[in-house]
Amino acid sequence: MRTRFTDMDCSIARSLDAVGRSWTLLIVRDAYFGVRRFEDFQGRLGIARNVLAARLRALVEADVLQRRRYQERPPRYEYRLTEKGRELLPVLLALKDWGDRWATAGEPPVRIEHAACGAADVRAVMTCSHCGERLQPFNVRAHGALVPEAPGS
Amino acid sequence: MRTRFTDMDCSIARSLDAVGRSWTLLIVRDAYFGVRRFEDFQGRLGIARNVLAARLRALVEADVLQRRRYQERPPRYEYRLTEKGRELLPVLLALKDWGDRWATAGEPPVRIEHAACGAADVRAVMTCSHCGERLQPFNVRAHGALVPEAPGS
Repeated sequence: MRTRFTDMDCSIARSLDAVGRSWTLLIVRDAYFGVRRFEDFQGRLGIARNVLAARLRALVEADVLQRRRYQERPPRYEYRLTEKGRELLPVLLALKDWGDRWATAGEPPVRIEHAACGAADVRAVMTCSHCGERLQPFNVRAHGALVPEAPGS
Repeated sequence: MRTRFTDMDCSIARSLDAVGRSWTLLIVRDAYFGVRRFEDFQGRLGIARNVLAARLRALVEADVLQRRRYQERPPRYEYRLTEKGRELLPVLLALKDWGDRWATAGEPPVRIEHAACGAADVRAVMTCSHCGERLQPFNVRAHGALVPEAPGS
């Protein structure tokens, strides 16, 4: 049994409830880059079929993926990201960036191209919606019911 | 048994290997906001003690947390984020932002203050390291061995 975090009044906990299980974000990653069919997810991830089926079902229930029939006989389905699913991009890019820096030796295995400006190898930079400067660990504070002020900070 | 993703040549998979297990990112979240002691993590998260002990041990092994003795008799330890751990901020903020928008009804429960500019309620915006514009789902492409071009994109 897995603990559910939704009772916590915390958006991080709620996000993890939706996409925090093993494989889930890798399925979303692959969906991002065009994978749509069960067999293709299965082949790329090497995941057990029953686990993949359960994760896809949960992602459809969470409205991260949409399931569409693309063939009538026999019926076959494909999975596409919803708007909610596509908006996981910052989560994926933040994980990629951290892994590139801390968990990967040598060159990052995947390159991100920003089609809007044409740069072929960019990193994702987390900035402040107010001033546009980079958000850094030492200049961010959280306020709210769940998360008290850091002692001594 | 949990599958390990480190054999995949993908930084997202490697990051999830380090911090993708249940509770892990909530422990990092709490560490971010000043929680340091086993009893305090336990009280806030309501997590089983053996699970918490295992997660803390794994986070120390992964060099996300550092374990320090703060009392000699009896010996007591506290946990603090390393630089590697602090650099998970974008991952936490991206999860918060997505949860604020998609998984939380009403006002976000936690407010982020950007001390550098003084704004008391900011969102994290993921921008391009090259041009500074926002990275959006439709203008980002990945290139690399693991992730092929999206069909039809």
